[in-house]
Amino acid sequence: MTQPKLGIICGGGELPTKVAQACISANRPFHVLALKGHAGDEVLQFPHSWITFGKVGRLLAVLNDEACADVVMIGNVRRPNFAQLAPDAAGIKLLPKIVAAARKGDDALLRALVGFFEGAGFHVVGVDDVIADIVGREGVQGAIRPSDDHWADIQRAIEVAREIGRLDIGQAAIVCGGVVLAVEAAEGTDAMLDRCADLPVEIRGTELARRGVLVKLAKPIQERRVDLPTIGPPTIIKAADAGLAGVAYEADGSLLINPKEIIANADSSGLFVIGIGGDEPKSGN
Amino acid sequence: MTQPKLGIICGGGELPTKVAQACISANRPFHVLALKGHAGDEVLQFPHSWITFGKVGRLLAVLNDEACADVVMIGNVRRPNFAQLAPDAAGIKLLPKIVAAARKGDDALLRALVGFFEGAGFHVVGVDDVIADIVGREGVQGAIRPSDDHWADIQRAIEVAREIGRLDIGQAAIVCGGVVLAVEAAEGTDAMLDRCADLPVEIRGTELARRGVLVKLAKPIQERRVDLPTIGPPTIIKAADAGLAGVAYEADGSLLINPKEIIANADSSGLFVIGIGGDEPKSGN
Repeated sequence: MTQPKLGIICGGGELPTKVAQACISANRPFHVLALKGHAGDEVLQFPHSWITFGKVGRLLAVLNDEACADVVMIGNVRRPNFAQLAPDAAGIKLLPKIVAAARKGDDALLRALVGFFEGAGFHVVGVDDVIADIVGREGVQGAIRPSDDHWADIQRAIEVAREIGRLDIGQAAIVCGGVVLAVEAAEGTDAMLDRCADLPVEIRGTELARRGVLVKLAKPIQERRVDLPTIGPPTIIKAADAGLAGVAYEADGSLLINPKEIIANADSSGLFVIGIGGDEPKSGN
Repeated sequence: MTQPKLGIICGGGELPTKVAQACISANRPFHVLALKGHAGDEVLQFPHSWITFGKVGRLLAVLNDEACADVVMIGNVRRPNFAQLAPDAAGIKLLPKIVAAARKGDDALLRALVGFFEGAGFHVVGVDDVIADIVGREGVQGAIRPSDDHWADIQRAIEVAREIGRLDIGQAAIVCGGVVLAVEAAEGTDAMLDRCADLPVEIRGTELARRGVLVKLAKPIQERRVDLPTIGPPTIIKAADAGLAGVAYEADGSLLINPKEIIANADSSGLFVIGIGGDEPKSGN
């Protein structure tokens, strides 16, 4: 049975291309709705239309014209300055709800968007419905295992990441020897890892003596069909540059982009990569 | 009546000099114990001894030789790498306690140090016991008052700063239009403000259209005799560069270094500076 046609509403990064390729592999019909200023030229190779923040009527018209029954929202998108949008009629109707949700945080904003598409008769699916093997699994992924010291840091970072997730601040924390080196907010995980590399060496690890871990968790209230935490090969490279000993992600709640390359990078730099369960992790896994 | 002689155990920054000058103004005897690698050459103008992390016996000997009954700990200090210290006999005895406390966070570490000095017979005082007018007061400090939008951001930032304080992560948060732009961890407030200036302009304020606030609070579990949140003239300059609309600090729980210069900087850049009470702030103050 052919699956319903998929509308891929997308920003930048690697994920939109991967989703489109997964559709092609599965013989699933799709149409890319590429957000201007965010999506890149890689969308040109697929059937696509360009869309603009605020032009909500146009977005719905494309989805209907293309007969997309399912919708997925993926890729990197920066928040717009809502005061500077030029919405169309449908956008003017939706905007107050979106602005009110946006004031509560990114997750509230994304949940409002999901609610809007569902209310307009579309079925919002998660990226893991399209790409089967993209969700990170539990357990040690590469050749290196966390030590007991690393486990202590993982547990403290889980505690911190849970709290900042609960407050809809961010998804990630870095802990080294019990000290919280960095907490993710609007800057994103890459920038957080970059600044970790600038901290005094007394409180962090180095390439010769790796210490500290990055933990990335889905927010507890997270709308899991959009914005799951993502780990990619650059995450590992930046974690290695920051002197970290490893990276832990939430099993069954994170996207691993190019897992083979992730593990190869981690093994060659001497970092562990581990998927942790919803429950407290146990020493030695 | 002459006050007891004060041992000023200090790292870097402006505060050690200010405390020493306050002692001179008050005719209070004092001796500076300057931490090598942290305190600057400004201590050379005062009666001083250099001390080293781990040399605990030497530190106690100086305090006793100089007959210091009171002790104050101030100034910027980076955490040492405990594994690389060369402690003396008293240091070897103390170190396990300190390392265990350090694993729980900066505040636990400082409380352990306070406990150590108290146990050794010294009276640990806060900087506000030495410099009377250094503690920030409640209310609007300059010419500019926060708007209702700013109050909404202040309240969200208070919520965030309280939680990260409770977890002993840091003391400060920046919120703009409901979005948490940055959370302070090991990098400190200045670095947090610097990276805020690098965020996309869509989600932050600019010098022409100021938005967003920095809120700095004492940690709820904070040992208030050491490490109170500090606001200085550079804080305001960096907040202005990041496009923020203002800075809020905890009244009666923060140190304002050079308040006149702080207010002058804020007024000339168009930022508000406000001391907020322990209770929820009210709109319009």
